[in-house]
Amino acid sequence: MEVAVLGATGYAGVELVRLLLDHPRVSIRSVTSESYAGQDLGEVFPHLRGKGLRLASTSDPVEVTCREADVVFLCLPHGLAMHVVPELLERGKRVIDLGADFRLRDPAQYRTWYGQPHACPSLIAEAVYGLPELYRDRIKAARLVANPGCYPTSILLALAPLAGLPGLDWSMVVADCKSGVSGAGRGLSLGTHFCEVDGSVRPYQVGGQHRHVPEIEQEIDHLLRGASVVKVAFTPHLVPMVRGMLATVYVPIGRGGTGSQVQGAWLRELYLHRYEKEPFVQVLDEGQWPSTQNVRGSNLCQVGVTLEKRTGMVLALSALDNLGKGAAGQAVQNLNIMMGWPEDTGLTRPPLVP
Amino acid sequence: MEVAVLGATGYAGVELVRLLLDHPRVSIRSVTSESYAGQDLGEVFPHLRGKGLRLASTSDPVEVTCREADVVFLCLPHGLAMHVVPELLERGKRVIDLGADFRLRDPAQYRTWYGQPHACPSLIAEAVYGLPELYRDRIKAARLVANPGCYPTSILLALAPLAGLPGLDWSMVVADCKSGVSGAGRGLSLGTHFCEVDGSVRPYQVGGQHRHVPEIEQEIDHLLRGASVVKVAFTPHLVPMVRGMLATVYVPIGRGGTGSQVQGAWLRELYLHRYEKEPFVQVLDEGQWPSTQNVRGSNLCQVGVTLEKRTGMVLALSALDNLGKGAAGQAVQNLNIMMGWPEDTGLTRPPLVP
Amino acid sequence: MEVAVLGATGYAGVELVRLLLDHPRVSIRSVTSESYAGQDLGEVFPHLRGKGLRLASTSDPVEVTCREADVVFLCLPHGLAMHVVPELLERGKRVIDLGADFRLRDPAQYRTWYGQPHACPSLIAEAVYGLPELYRDRIKAARLVANPGCYPTSILLALAPLAGLPGLDWSMVVADCKSGVSGAGRGLSLGTHFCEVDGSVRPYQVGGQHRHVPEIEQEIDHLLRGASVVKVAFTPHLVPMVRGMLATVYVPIGRGGTGSQVQGAWLRELYLHRYEKEPFVQVLDEGQWPSTQNVRGSNLCQVGVTLEKRTGMVLALSALDNLGKGAAGQAVQNLNIMMGWPEDTGLTRPPLVP
Amino acid sequence: MEVAVLGATGYAGVELVRLLLDHPRVSIRSVTSESYAGQDLGEVFPHLRGKGLRLASTSDPVEVTCREADVVFLCLPHGLAMHVVPELLERGKRVIDLGADFRLRDPAQYRTWYGQPHACPSLIAEAVYGLPELYRDRIKAARLVANPGCYPTSILLALAPLAGLPGLDWSMVVADCKSGVSGAGRGLSLGTHFCEVDGSVRPYQVGGQHRHVPEIEQEIDHLLRGASVVKVAFTPHLVPMVRGMLATVYVPIGRGGTGSQVQGAWLRELYLHRYEKEPFVQVLDEGQWPSTQNVRGSNLCQVGVTLEKRTGMVLALSALDNLGKGAAGQAVQNLNIMMGWPEDTGLTRPPLVP
Repeated sequence: MEVAVLGATGYAGVELVRLLLDHPRVSIRSVTSESYAGQDLGEVFPHLRGKGLRLASTSDPVEVTCREADVVFLCLPHGLAMHVVPELLERGKRVIDLGADFRLRDPAQYRTWYGQPHACPSLIAEAVYGLPELYRDRIKAARLVANPGCYPTSILLALAPLAGLPGLDWSMVVADCKSGVSGAGRGLSLGTHFCEVDGSVRPYQVGGQHRHVPEIEQEIDHLLRGASVVKVAFTPHLVPMVRGMLATVYVPIGRGGTGSQVQGAWLRELYLHRYEKEPFVQVLDEGQWPSTQNVRGSNLCQVGVTLEKRTGMVLALSALDNLGKGAAGQAVQNLNIMMGWPEDTGLTRPPLVP
Repeated sequence: MEVAVLGATGYAGVELVRLLLDHPRVSIRSVTSESYAGQDLGEVFPHLRGKGLRLASTSDPVEVTCREADVVFLCLPHGLAMHVVPELLERGKRVIDLGADFRLRDPAQYRTWYGQPHACPSLIAEAVYGLPELYRDRIKAARLVANPGCYPTSILLALAPLAGLPGLDWSMVVADCKSGVSGAGRGLSLGTHFCEVDGSVRPYQVGGQHRHVPEIEQEIDHLLRGASVVKVAFTPHLVPMVRGMLATVYVPIGRGGTGSQVQGAWLRELYLHRYEKEPFVQVLDEGQWPSTQNVRGSNLCQVGVTLEKRTGMVLALSALDNLGKGAAGQAVQNLNIMMGWPEDTGLTRPPLVP
Repeated sequence: MEVAVLGATGYAGVELVRLLLDHPRVSIRSVTSESYAGQDLGEVFPHLRGKGLRLASTSDPVEVTCREADVVFLCLPHGLAMHVVPELLERGKRVIDLGADFRLRDPAQYRTWYGQPHACPSLIAEAVYGLPELYRDRIKAARLVANPGCYPTSILLALAPLAGLPGLDWSMVVADCKSGVSGAGRGLSLGTHFCEVDGSVRPYQVGGQHRHVPEIEQEIDHLLRGASVVKVAFTPHLVPMVRGMLATVYVPIGRGGTGSQVQGAWLRELYLHRYEKEPFVQVLDEGQWPSTQNVRGSNLCQVGVTLEKRTGMVLALSALDNLGKGAAGQAVQNLNIMMGWPEDTGLTRPPLVP
Repeated sequence: MEVAVLGATGYAGVELVRLLLDHPRVSIRSVTSESYAGQDLGEVFPHLRGKGLRLASTSDPVEVTCREADVVFLCLPHGLAMHVVPELLERGKRVIDLGADFRLRDPAQYRTWYGQPHACPSLIAEAVYGLPELYRDRIKAARLVANPGCYPTSILLALAPLAGLPGLDWSMVVADCKSGVSGAGRGLSLGTHFCEVDGSVRPYQVGGQHRHVPEIEQEIDHLLRGASVVKVAFTPHLVPMVRGMLATVYVPIGRGGTGSQVQGAWLRELYLHRYEKEPFVQVLDEGQWPSTQNVRGSNLCQVGVTLEKRTGMVLALSALDNLGKGAAGQAVQNLNIMMGWPEDTGLTRPPLVP
């Protein structure tokens, strides 16, 4: 099968290319870049020397850049994909968008958080949120998959098994997340300059300012089928490491909920049961907790859960690679589902440890 | 003035020696070590070459090791200080204990969390909790100061200005903390082996297991004068950096509390007012948030606060150096207070940036 | 094909398991460990959860641990392999030894550098030095392959194309090497404690003390067919990173050599020609230089060369992953050669960047 | 005494401000910046909050920015200082230039390496090369001090004691250096982007291209009083750490030199003797080698030396902080010398370890 990657020289894009090059059923027909058009990808990224991938311009017509592709991956800054997708669909391509343009179901939310009206609201309804653990069946037949953000993926996989549990207060969820620097992209900024990052941890977008907030709440709401008010206090932090994301999520047991309703003893059982058939979500043994090292470079997400009896909180943690399950890995998983291939095709290599 | 440092070859101990060597009114008379007794400190730590500090044995009688000292600093593993302090006080020394033995006021709590009965419960009442921002007056005259833990210091300084505020629900506080690896000490373990830490973030002591929990709650309870039930869900994380601690603390506005009671507009004012005379606590400008880089190597603590209206949470953050304000720097500050010296004596050097 | 890995819980061992798990023609029949015998490998290394690999004891008889294996990989501390290899060969196994026991051809050298007599000198002659770029043909039929050390691999691949060049002074080679910390192994030591390594670079084994010195000189001597006196001033350095090795090698043009004999213009051509058919050695374009990032997690070695006219030195540089081409990756490459499989089987995944 | 710092928001500039703020005999009268003119320094660097330093524009007339200063520090990009210095000297200021404009004694060399003619060659002769260990007496009375580059400082301090030694071949010196990233400055570039640097080591300016080459050779030539041909093969490397520089320098014993002329036994004695009165250069004990950690944040330089008998090389190593002894610390040391103050005034704080 032939694919195209629009925006191949950002970190998500180049990770996607890395995975697709090793995918046994895929051939990359074209790659594009805004900044490096005309160069060989191996000149920009010496770890991909000799792969014969010449970068077209992202501004070129999709008729040219994607002509021979059956599936098109979009790794573009938000606001661009929504102008490209309609034509791609018209031409019969299937599209996996790693950006934000088709994740929010409410165009008004898009306008609020991204500062511009949505260019093709009619396609939003068709787009499937590409979290296989929640939407696998719909992904199979989707023409347009909106690959989730890294923070939402980590939080949703930490929380999903709790959805059916009575007695939780979903209006006071705290999601404290720690991300590697590659999540901030390859664009230059003082905040990602080595000397400003190394040896230091800091929060950013404090106070619920991050654009992933509405995505997180939309999907928790979906999980709960609207049964509760959902509010998540989400604080992202930048950690001096390249890859990895850790979500530490606190869900209080509501005052109406009694101790007998939520028992620590079977919380792990609940998670094991929920994820037993998932190829990429692993529930850790008692006493083990997620560490980003253990998923580095892979599509895995490791989760752990406990009940903090003293404070009456369910504590759910997850670790993933923000470029793996948080972006490119998940995109490949979605591709596999869409094509009806074994879901782990091209994704079997274990994480890079140490 | 003459001082002794018992336990000078752990990270807190050697940082204390570093600070005391540069203190204009102090002379170090003796240093001890369990592992390196007999060697020159400069052999163990080449950055302290040529200071002429020979290590006595920590096991030697304090009569010998501390004879000429007016003030004795203890940087010992928990459980040791409580056996040494009585004799030191009898001999007229004043003691600053960087360990945990005299922080908890309830001996039963000590037994529960440290797994052994307290050896001199009678001295617990006399010990002063060495957080100057809360106990400055009592520290002045103290014979025995219990220097706070690093996590409690970061959380308490983030929260202290909120103490008088009505309408907060102190029974559902979340304190999500991120620490550099030096907090785990110089002892070898797989968990602090370079290849297991670098490029990775992970939680530890998940589920309220960390020994700083009772210390945190004891002092918040003191702040509130017992007016509320206090429960803190505290999760420490290990970040791949040597020094630094960031506390991200979430305090919900209780259901009884109304929006008019807690206003974002004056939360920062409240903090500025509370800390305006504090030499080492800095309230950041609006839009700036704490970063551990900006306090590295110093006794500073930088704090920020905001109201997350949407979720009804007060969000308070603080950054400090776990070996500075979180340990040795604070010990020197306490010394200055006890001696009646300007509180910043020997502590004026700005943080090391970059 | 069935393989066994003796010593699977050191860093080279576990990297080898990671690669073999993804190798399409290999099945791992047994893994052993001295420290973790009896546990599942996934308990020790959570990134290998669910692979169903139970650790036998390295001390168990090879009759038990290797019975069903056709090929046995040894990842043992030096001095152990030489006691195990004879029985393995007798039982008809083929052996790839990642340790040092069979690398030196002169048993006297082994005794000098490793502090003990060699236990089976008769097998030394049979052992093939497992650097495919030098010994590919002999590896094909070998029963016992001595997988090279990481430093020798990096230096030899930097230098090999220079072997036939007249006018170089091989008695004054400087090889200044920089290694990631994983090369020091998983055993605990203060020198690999995170806080002692992070943010700092330091040399070790200064003055030609490192055990790779005789291996380096033996193989350069082999390259030159004994035509010159070979002396290499080799200084290893520890860099605060987990994986990666960079060799910066300086070879003076001898006083007898004239400028016309060595021309910068065609040095790169020489390298391109020498390595054009090598699947894992890449000669970088002019103006590009090796960086360990670009080979991370792979079996690649990237090299660059220039002539420093002003000083009359040939400067050759190489970068590899010390656990990849410097250990486990090369072992898999050797396996592929021994089996007659395509040499890159299981080794095609591009490096992990960023 | 009053000082001005032109260019205070680069890394060398802000480190200089950090040191001067803690200097007991200095008051900072003005600071300037090209990018941040008009802001408070504490807004740009939160670790310097509350110091009351408002940034003037570097483009403002020195009559304005330096009027009240007795001594002016220049931390400007090369090519700017030479236009400012003449007026400063005319106005009776003494100048310490941390840039490159007055380091090279030959204006033709300046033109060759910096790509432009020197603007005031007449002042070059007057400028004193500010390496106190070589030029202390001349610095005392200097009006204009050219503070050395970080690489030259590290190499010269490693080599200086060898100057009088017969039998060394100074035409084949190898200086292989490893630097932290802060040496590349605060300007943004892909090469200093966190994700491109972390976990990786790489060379740059390979082949003797670095602008410090002529400075290094000029000063070794000065050390030798022109007695030998001096050629240094210098290769700088970027190491994933913020601060620190390690020089590994190889000097061959010439073929004419005999073993009896250079003895390892007294090389260390030679170094000890040469540096015994130096306040900032420390010769390490036998068996210890320099590590950048042990000088971090200080003005120290630690050196080690050995004779590699087998290869006939003298191996000299040094570690310093590129922003300390390699830039701002050395500038303060020069200030102290110029003023006749104790040379370590304001520079006594031990390095930051860990």
